Amino acid sequence: MKWIHGGVTAPKGFSAAAYAAGIKKKKLDVALLVSDCNASIAGAFTTNLVKAAPVVWDQHIVEQHIQVKAIVINSGNANACTGKQGELDTESMATTVAKTIGCAVDEVLVCSTGVIGVPLPMSKIHNGITECAAALGSDSVHAEQAALAICTTDTFVKQASVEFEIDGIPVRIGGMAKGSGMIHPNMATMLAFITTDAAIDQTLLQTMLGNSVKESYNMISVDGDTSTNDTVLVMANGCSESPRIVEGSREAEIFHTAFTAVHTELAKLIVKDGEGAGKFIQVDVIGAPDDDSARLLARSVISSNLVKAAFFGADANWGRILCAMGYSGGTFDPGAVTVGYASPAGSITVLQDGLPLPFDEALAKLILQENEITVTAKVGNDTGKATAWGCDLTYEYVRINGDYRS
Amino acid sequence: MKWIHGGVTAPKGFSAAAYAAGIKKKKLDVALLVSDCNASIAGAFTTNLVKAAPVVWDQHIVEQHIQVKAIVINSGNANACTGKQGELDTESMATTVAKTIGCAVDEVLVCSTGVIGVPLPMSKIHNGITECAAALGSDSVHAEQAALAICTTDTFVKQASVEFEIDGIPVRIGGMAKGSGMIHPNMATMLAFITTDAAIDQTLLQTMLGNSVKESYNMISVDGDTSTNDTVLVMANGCSESPRIVEGSREAEIFHTAFTAVHTELAKLIVKDGEGAGKFIQVDVIGAPDDDSARLLARSVISSNLVKAAFFGADANWGRILCAMGYSGGTFDPGAVTVGYASPAGSITVLQDGLPLPFDEALAKLILQENEITVTAKVGNDTGKATAWGCDLTYEYVRINGDYRS
Repeated sequence: MKWIHGGVTAPKGFSAAAYAAGIKKKKLDVALLVSDCNASIAGAFTTNLVKAAPVVWDQHIVEQHIQVKAIVINSGNANACTGKQGELDTESMATTVAKTIGCAVDEVLVCSTGVIGVPLPMSKIHNGITECAAALGSDSVHAEQAALAICTTDTFVKQASVEFEIDGIPVRIGGMAKGSGMIHPNMATMLAFITTDAAIDQTLLQTMLGNSVKESYNMISVDGDTSTNDTVLVMANGCSESPRIVEGSREAEIFHTAFTAVHTELAKLIVKDGEGAGKFIQVDVIGAPDDDSARLLARSVISSNLVKAAFFGADANWGRILCAMGYSGGTFDPGAVTVGYASPAGSITVLQDGLPLPFDEALAKLILQENEITVTAKVGNDTGKATAWGCDLTYEYVRINGDYRS
Repeated sequence: MKWIHGGVTAPKGFSAAAYAAGIKKKKLDVALLVSDCNASIAGAFTTNLVKAAPVVWDQHIVEQHIQVKAIVINSGNANACTGKQGELDTESMATTVAKTIGCAVDEVLVCSTGVIGVPLPMSKIHNGITECAAALGSDSVHAEQAALAICTTDTFVKQASVEFEIDGIPVRIGGMAKGSGMIHPNMATMLAFITTDAAIDQTLLQTMLGNSVKESYNMISVDGDTSTNDTVLVMANGCSESPRIVEGSREAEIFHTAFTAVHTELAKLIVKDGEGAGKFIQVDVIGAPDDDSARLLARSVISSNLVKAAFFGADANWGRILCAMGYSGGTFDPGAVTVGYASPAGSITVLQDGLPLPFDEALAKLILQENEITVTAKVGNDTGKATAWGCDLTYEYVRINGDYRS
């Protein structure tokens, strides 16, 4: 597997376009992603009880196992808390895409992100869709523009693509995402779109997506606040002409590794773009009874305000890490925990088998003043492990989230 | 029921003392609370898997339904993550108290709060206990000094006491607590101690405590971080000579109301002392299917960083409130939610039946710039309701928690 450039149009048979339709001020705000032929679809959606209209639309399509042709995305307005009108507007977006590119309405998925509680400006959006459909292209510039059009408070475009071989035939997976780690202003949102020219059934793709999401987006700290619009969509169109990937095969394993790598890379980019975030923190939990327990522990650590504030202050406060694992719901023996910090400045162990070690405070400070830090918590001698990514809690976080609407 | 002064020595048959034993620098740091006769005991403890040694000691006593005589508390050191030595030190504290006041070792409860991972300075503590035992008194000055001695980062002493009648005989409940709302520096901690001269069985008292904790301490925002030492202990010694309170009686109801009032008052004082907190926020959820659902929703709102940062910025961001309820795990129909804000500056409704209302932004700002604000979320037409209390997320919070150990 090698990392390549190209984003969502890197795999064969996908084209994209973006347009500044006027939902945001003079910025790209409508993106269209089209597959030449029908594609298998898989999706993962917010577990929030409050779901935006497009989430409900997409969930329905994914549940029906329908092959799809396109995804349309607008930024600047989340179409959330918009009642019946919101549902009609979502369907109307799909209808316009279907007419313009020539497919069925239920072959079009819809995503929206931005402010909530405001009806979509539909004439602008229809115009944006028409312009996009006329400008589709499959080079990397088109992919980049689409990746830009889905952004809201993001400070950089997030793309990842890989190439690997199935039976000697090159296969690609490409992706783009939006979202900025610590902040979900007005609750909107994390979106990710993945394309692949592999041939794979919807059911297997959906299973793999569930597993990959657990190890990627679900392991980044996002305030603990899951939004109304969080969506991950995957289209697999088979255009590579590689053999169909079937469950339990070696090819399925190869694909899954590459697939998870793309999701994980996008998730890490989201964390790194956390506005107000000063440091990128990785939490490795090892030695847990199983991976699920390890995930609970790692996520609890990276989500704790006290842990995050300690990283802001470059404070080797292992007590807060132990404490966050303690209330995580995961099981471990506190008397068996060893905690250490590492960064380009060095590494240090501060807790061994549940008891504090005397340590060099000056070295700890140097390690924790770096911008990328790894905490390792060994919680036992079993094989369960997990990694979570997050950032520190800063003045900037409070400022941005206090001021957002004003 | 009327509010009175006097703290933990307000009920008959309790005496207290405090001493500056040198665990903290020149501040009161050991407190002793003694009942003249044996008292029924009830306790509620941290659910954190990582428990300090005294928590384990107290839990064991409470589980044995043993009548007790005294509680000893030290601040400045939490005796947490101290291994086998920590257990021995806890027992040693109980032994010293037992010898000094003349009771059995398992009639003495022990609490510690302060820094973690450091062994207790036992000779200082033994000396402090001896000094306290020699200075016991039952006036309000002794109660106040004890309340001061249990403080760590608290900026004021927290006490509450009430008087009411059982069968025409005056009965009192007194309490003291420590903890500062948003902050648990080095994880330590919320402690509360309640005394009453009512006569009541251990089993009934324990049941009542469980219910009261659900409505008081469990409804305040404490970072989401539960500590290694959180403890609530209740002693009921029957010295009022009022009739014994039995389950299901009207007297039990009267007692429970007063008991919960004292716990709730202490919980609110803890929130108000949140260092770095600028505003006191009350969240009322009404119309839920049941009280437990309402509690889930209210707690999720008051715990959300995004909601708290919006209060800091005086931003009427109802979307974040709706979103926090959406991921709470509680059930409700988002289309039936009405949200309003109230403070001394006025009141305003911003969301009605799930749809945004146009509202006066200037008035909303005035309301949200006050120091005490109530949010009401009506989530349906059922009778379930709950109230949660918390504070805003401020620069100060980040500063204090980033700098704590340095």
